[in-house]
Amino acid sequence: MYALDRLQKIQARNKSMICLGLDLDPKRMPPDFTTSAKAMFDFAVRIVEATADIVCAYKPNIAFYESLGGEGLSLLRMIIERIPDDIPVILDAKRGDIGNTSAHYAHALFDGLKADWVTLNPYMGYDSLRPFLEYKEKGVFILCLTSNPGSKDFQMLMVDGKPLYRIVAEKVVYWNKVHNCGLVVGATVPEQLKEIREVAATLPLLIPGVGAQGGSLEAAVLNGTDNFRKPALINVSRSVLYASKGDDFAQRAREEMMKLNDIVNGLRNRTLEPPPPLPNMKRNDNTKEENREQKPEGNYSNSNNNNE
Amino acid sequence: MYALDRLQKIQARNKSMICLGLDLDPKRMPPDFTTSAKAMFDFAVRIVEATADIVCAYKPNIAFYESLGGEGLSLLRMIIERIPDDIPVILDAKRGDIGNTSAHYAHALFDGLKADWVTLNPYMGYDSLRPFLEYKEKGVFILCLTSNPGSKDFQMLMVDGKPLYRIVAEKVVYWNKVHNCGLVVGATVPEQLKEIREVAATLPLLIPGVGAQGGSLEAAVLNGTDNFRKPALINVSRSVLYASKGDDFAQRAREEMMKLNDIVNGLRNRTLEPPPPLPNMKRNDNTKEENREQKPEGNYSNSNNNNE
Repeated sequence: MYALDRLQKIQARNKSMICLGLDLDPKRMPPDFTTSAKAMFDFAVRIVEATADIVCAYKPNIAFYESLGGEGLSLLRMIIERIPDDIPVILDAKRGDIGNTSAHYAHALFDGLKADWVTLNPYMGYDSLRPFLEYKEKGVFILCLTSNPGSKDFQMLMVDGKPLYRIVAEKVVYWNKVHNCGLVVGATVPEQLKEIREVAATLPLLIPGVGAQGGSLEAAVLNGTDNFRKPALINVSRSVLYASKGDDFAQRAREEMMKLNDIVNGLRNRTLEPPPPLPNMKRNDNTKEENREQKPEGNYSNSNNNNE
Repeated sequence: MYALDRLQKIQARNKSMICLGLDLDPKRMPPDFTTSAKAMFDFAVRIVEATADIVCAYKPNIAFYESLGGEGLSLLRMIIERIPDDIPVILDAKRGDIGNTSAHYAHALFDGLKADWVTLNPYMGYDSLRPFLEYKEKGVFILCLTSNPGSKDFQMLMVDGKPLYRIVAEKVVYWNKVHNCGLVVGATVPEQLKEIREVAATLPLLIPGVGAQGGSLEAAVLNGTDNFRKPALINVSRSVLYASKGDDFAQRAREEMMKLNDIVNGLRNRTLEPPPPLPNMKRNDNTKEENREQKPEGNYSNSNNNNE
């Protein structure tokens, strides 16, 4: 089964489009779980056990493991092995190199670390991505418009009247011959998310940048999925992983995940099954709809501070 | 001492601007040295011992080590430890992520693996590079215009009349507050190399893409250094590392390196110390000069096939 089919299957089963980032940062973890690689593994396993029925994917960022030194990648490998087989693992690695070298990266991430999806950087062009694309049952999310302030430096530059991120989106659509490509688009740019959703009509979008307060979750979901018609994943990390530094961290992580799922599924129900309008309520309902549509713009600058 | 000073010191001492890529690929290595991580380590040590007095840097690409699985990064760490302290190690990793995550990469590469320089991908903008730039005594080479065919996909797009790679070069010049930035520019694009050399007047250029036949070495050197007035490193990998599959691989690697140094130093002598013109030879000398200046363009398409 192809990566996108597997992803959509688990999204339906777990009623979730939330991807949980597994970025183990000793500075933020409960202190008892930072004393050794084994303790960090236990933390991750408890998080996975507490959330495996309510996420659609896990997304470890490899930088957090590389920075742990010699044991880091072994720890990552062990954690990935403990994630149930039917839940996709997106390895956030943002790789990209000349073809021969990219083939080594693809082997390391897909075969060695058993990732189902990886994130890639498009700057070096098609041949830097191709070795990954040749894994037809795996998937890639290619950086398009990222959630950080630096996205303005190059991604938003105008090329012949089009922003660079849009050209990246168009090229990836063209390169998506076997339906294993997706795009990374930040929740911090809801208008552009809508634009990219239109350009990349069938590609799954991986959407980071939803803040600890969930500021623009609503916009990310509605714009990223074109009102639940297209595939998308919303990534959250810190707000769930580090919801508590106490013994209840796993339970609290689960509660945070459930809150997020409830918000998303509430939107889904509102979008797909509008209540029959009552004559004297109609004006109020419309007002509510308008407020919701305008919220993303209002939240733009706030949500910049809550990047994940 | 800053990274660029250290680099220039070793370039003068070893009379070399050749950086040797340490991309250990079992498919190309002498078979006896591919049986274990220990054997691969021995291969690398013999290469380093045979060349340490005639290179200006070593550049392992981390992808080749990641693809070896669990032992790969330990092998890389051991190899880096065996490189003499005064020879810079450029870890070719092409990293870049949002600020907090990039800080983890910087820690992994600079503190963990003891790299002196790393290569970075600029697509995510300034805040993705900043954690690396804050290591003031280390250095970064930021991808500008790469040597692979995919460089045309995005790097060469025109933004307000300027190619994207030029905007990258200009921004990196601006970000180079503590003189620890350089740029990666492929030898396969000698004209653009000249242009970027002008834009980034004082930055060191890391120049990959010189082929096994040394096709455009001359153009890379002259354009990359502005006739030996500016700092640059020419990277070679396969043509030196795998000059022989026999027992003489280290000696053959040394011979290949010496050939490259001789070509470069021959150019240097020609450029810096023109012979006094003899009256009846003047016309011939001028013709030779013109031929040399034109060679880069002529070699452009050939050298595309010899990318490293």
